[in-house]
Amino acid sequence: MVSRVLSADLPKHIGERVTIAGWLHRRRELKSVTFLIIRDRSGLAQVVLPAGTDPGLPEETVVQAEGLVTANEQAPGGAELTESAITALSGPAAPPPFDLYRPTVTATLPTILDYAPTTLRHPQLRAGFEISAASVAGFRAALDGLDFTEVFTPKIVESATESGANVFALDYFGRAAYLAQSPQFYKQAMVGVFERVYEVGPVFRAEPHDTARHLAEYTSLDAELGFITDHYDVMAVCRDAVAGIIASVGERGRFQLNRLGASLPTVPAQIPHIHFADAMALISRATREDVTAEPDLSPAHERWLCEWAVREHGSELLFVTGYPLPSKPFYTYPDPKRPEYSYGFDLLFRGTEIVTGGQRLHRHEDYLAALAARDERLEPYAGYLQVFEHGMPPHGGFALGLERWTARLTGAANVRQVTLFPRDLHRLSP
Amino acid sequence: MVSRVLSADLPKHIGERVTIAGWLHRRRELKSVTFLIIRDRSGLAQVVLPAGTDPGLPEETVVQAEGLVTANEQAPGGAELTESAITALSGPAAPPPFDLYRPTVTATLPTILDYAPTTLRHPQLRAGFEISAASVAGFRAALDGLDFTEVFTPKIVESATESGANVFALDYFGRAAYLAQSPQFYKQAMVGVFERVYEVGPVFRAEPHDTARHLAEYTSLDAELGFITDHYDVMAVCRDAVAGIIASVGERGRFQLNRLGASLPTVPAQIPHIHFADAMALISRATREDVTAEPDLSPAHERWLCEWAVREHGSELLFVTGYPLPSKPFYTYPDPKRPEYSYGFDLLFRGTEIVTGGQRLHRHEDYLAALAARDERLEPYAGYLQVFEHGMPPHGGFALGLERWTARLTGAANVRQVTLFPRDLHRLSP
Repeated sequence: MVSRVLSADLPKHIGERVTIAGWLHRRRELKSVTFLIIRDRSGLAQVVLPAGTDPGLPEETVVQAEGLVTANEQAPGGAELTESAITALSGPAAPPPFDLYRPTVTATLPTILDYAPTTLRHPQLRAGFEISAASVAGFRAALDGLDFTEVFTPKIVESATESGANVFALDYFGRAAYLAQSPQFYKQAMVGVFERVYEVGPVFRAEPHDTARHLAEYTSLDAELGFITDHYDVMAVCRDAVAGIIASVGERGRFQLNRLGASLPTVPAQIPHIHFADAMALISRATREDVTAEPDLSPAHERWLCEWAVREHGSELLFVTGYPLPSKPFYTYPDPKRPEYSYGFDLLFRGTEIVTGGQRLHRHEDYLAALAARDERLEPYAGYLQVFEHGMPPHGGFALGLERWTARLTGAANVRQVTLFPRDLHRLSP
Repeated sequence: MVSRVLSADLPKHIGERVTIAGWLHRRRELKSVTFLIIRDRSGLAQVVLPAGTDPGLPEETVVQAEGLVTANEQAPGGAELTESAITALSGPAAPPPFDLYRPTVTATLPTILDYAPTTLRHPQLRAGFEISAASVAGFRAALDGLDFTEVFTPKIVESATESGANVFALDYFGRAAYLAQSPQFYKQAMVGVFERVYEVGPVFRAEPHDTARHLAEYTSLDAELGFITDHYDVMAVCRDAVAGIIASVGERGRFQLNRLGASLPTVPAQIPHIHFADAMALISRATREDVTAEPDLSPAHERWLCEWAVREHGSELLFVTGYPLPSKPFYTYPDPKRPEYSYGFDLLFRGTEIVTGGQRLHRHEDYLAALAARDERLEPYAGYLQVFEHGMPPHGGFALGLERWTARLTGAANVRQVTLFPRDLHRLSP
C-alpha cells in the first residue's frame, strides 16, 4: 500500500515527517511559497511547498507529499505539511468540467451528471451518497436485529405483472423476459422459507415520467415478514427500520448532513398514523374542497398532511393507512370491516411518500377472488399464485426507495442529485 | 404480531402455557394420540394433540398451537407442547412436490427448482442460502472495517465492453442498452471519489454455457481500492474479506454447515501465492506434460494446484498471480519487469477459482496503448476512459461470485443448488 497518513490524522503526527496522498484539490501560488490543498477520503490537508519546488501539477492530479507535520491553526484540522516535496502518482490531470475546489457547485445538473465520475469527487456532491450508504447500513442493522434474513432475488423475470408499473423487455436467449419492477413476488415467497426477509437491490421501471422524483432504475430497500396480526405489525417494523436508518446516518453521516445543511428527523416511539378516510375528511374541512371521493392522495395532499403531522403530533413522519382497495395492487389485504379500504399504508416524510407497504393476501382463494374482481386472467399469475397453495402465514411488508429517501433527507430538489449514475427517460450514461 | 414463542425457545418456558406458530412439518398419528411437528424459522417443535382433537390439517398448512410446555428428552430441543389445541392460519396446504419432512432430499434438481418457493422450505435446501447471507454479511463487515464505502451502480448500461462476456440487450425507451456484466467501470471510477468501494449486486452474463458452475445472473461481491503499490495490496484486502466471510459463516452458519456436512477452511494470515509461470512449471514437472506455453489454467490445473497448496502449505486457499497479459482484460496492469505477464490474480479454493482480481491501469495513456495493442477502437470505451484523464491513483480490486463460493464451501455439485431462483440458458422461472 502507498505508505501514508490520512489527512484527518495529521494532528496526531505533529513534529513527525510523514507522507500523505490524494488529489491535488487546489493550488494557491504566492510570491515566495505555494500552498497546495490535498484531498483524500478523510478530508483536506494543506501542504506548503518551498519557493522554486512546485512542479506545477494541475488540479485533480493524484499526488503524494512528504513533509514535516506542523501545527497551524489556519490549516484544515489545525496541522499542515511544511518542508514538503511532492510527487505525481497519476499523469497530469485534465481540467474537470468545473472547479472542484469551490465550496459551492454552480454547474448545471446535466453537466454534473454527464461528467459524474469526476464531478462526484466534489465533497458537496459526494455527501449525498455517503448518506445513502449509511442509510442502507442502518436498514440492514435494524432488520438483522429483528431476525430478518437477507435475500438476493432475480432481476430477470418471466413476467412482471405485480405492480402495474411499465417494464423493460429484454431478449433472454431468444425468449422474451423482463426486468423486475420489484422483488414483490420473491419476497412474499421467501416468507414461506425464512419468515422474515429483506433485500437491498435495483428495481427497474420503464416509466415515461420526466419528473424530479422518478428514475428508471433505483435502489429499493424491501422487507417482508410473516405471522403478523395486521398491517400495524408491518408499520412497527417499518418504524424500527426507519429509526435504524436515521441512527446510522446520525452516526456515520453527521459531517455530510452539516455540509448539506440537512437535519435528521426525530423518530417517535410510535409514528403517528391516520386513516386515509380521516385524512381526506381533514383536508376537505381545511381546504373547503371536498376530496373525500378521491381514490388516492395527490402530492398537495401529502404535503398538507405532513404539515399537519408536524403541527398536531410534532412528527415529520406520518403513516397514512387504509388506502382505498382499488388504488392498491391486487395482493393488498382488504380491511375486513370496510372492504372498500385496504390494509395498505404509506409513510410520508417532509411532504412526500417514502415508504409504501401493507398486509398482503395470504390465502390462495383470496388471490383468485381478488384477480377475478379486477377482471384479470389467472394465467399470467400462475407462478405467483403457486406458493399460496402450499401454506402461507398472514404477512406483509414494505419498500423504501433509497434515492427518494436521501433526496428528502438532504433537501435535494431532484432525486438525480443523490443517485450516483441516474437512469431516466433520456439518460443512459455514464 | 401473532403472539408466539419460537420453537427454539420452548425449553425456557417449561411449565408455562404458550402459543407457537409455523408450518405443519409432519403429522404422526398413533392410536391414542397425534404428534405434530411444527417448523418455524428457529427450528422444529413437537406438539401432542389429545385423541379426537386433531383437525387433520395437511402438512405445510400454517398453524398456531397453544399448549403446556413439557420437558421431554425425545422431543426436538427437549421440550414439547402437551394439552394442545391447534388452529390453521392458512387454508389447508396442497401437497408439496415431495415430502419436506424427510431429512434427505431425493427430488431431482429440476423438480427442486421448478417448485423453488416451496421446496426451499426444506431445511437442507434452505441452509445454503443462509450460508450465502452470512457470507455477504461477513464481506461487508470486513470491508466496512477497512474504511470502504458501499456503492450502488447502474445495471442498465449504454455499452458493456469491459470483460468480453456476452451481454443481454434490452429496449431502453426505444434505444439499445445492455445489462451490466460487472460493475467494473463504475467501481474503478468510484475509487476516484471514495478511494475504497464495494458493491454487492447482480451481474448478468448471456453466456450460452450449460454447466454446473455458470449462471446467467449471479450475485457479485466486488471491491476496488486506490493508493496501492501493486496487486499484493489487493490480495491482502481480498484475504481479509475472505477471512471476514468465513468468520461470519462460522458465527451465523455453524448449524447450517453441520447440516450440509461442510467445514470451513482456515485462512492463513497470509494466503500462499504462486506465480502463474511457476505454477505451470510445477504442473509440467509433476504431470510430465509441458503446459508452460498455455495461456491460462484449465480446470484440471486448478484442481492440481489446490491439492498442491494443501500438501505444500497446508492451505485450502491459494493465490495464483501473474496470469499472462493477453488472457486478462485490457485494463489489467502489466508486470513492469515481465510485460508478457500481468498483475492479475485468481484465488483458488477447493479446486476452483472463486475470486478474480488484479491491479488495473490508472494512466490515461496506458489505456490508449493497451487498447491499441489489442487493435480495439477507442470509441466504444470513450465513457470508460474519461475518468482516467482526470487523475486516478494506482488501484485494483477483485470480485467474488457468491453462488460459486457457497457451492464450493458447502460441497454443492451444482451452483443452482445454492441459488434461490437460478437463471440459465433454459430457466427463467420461478
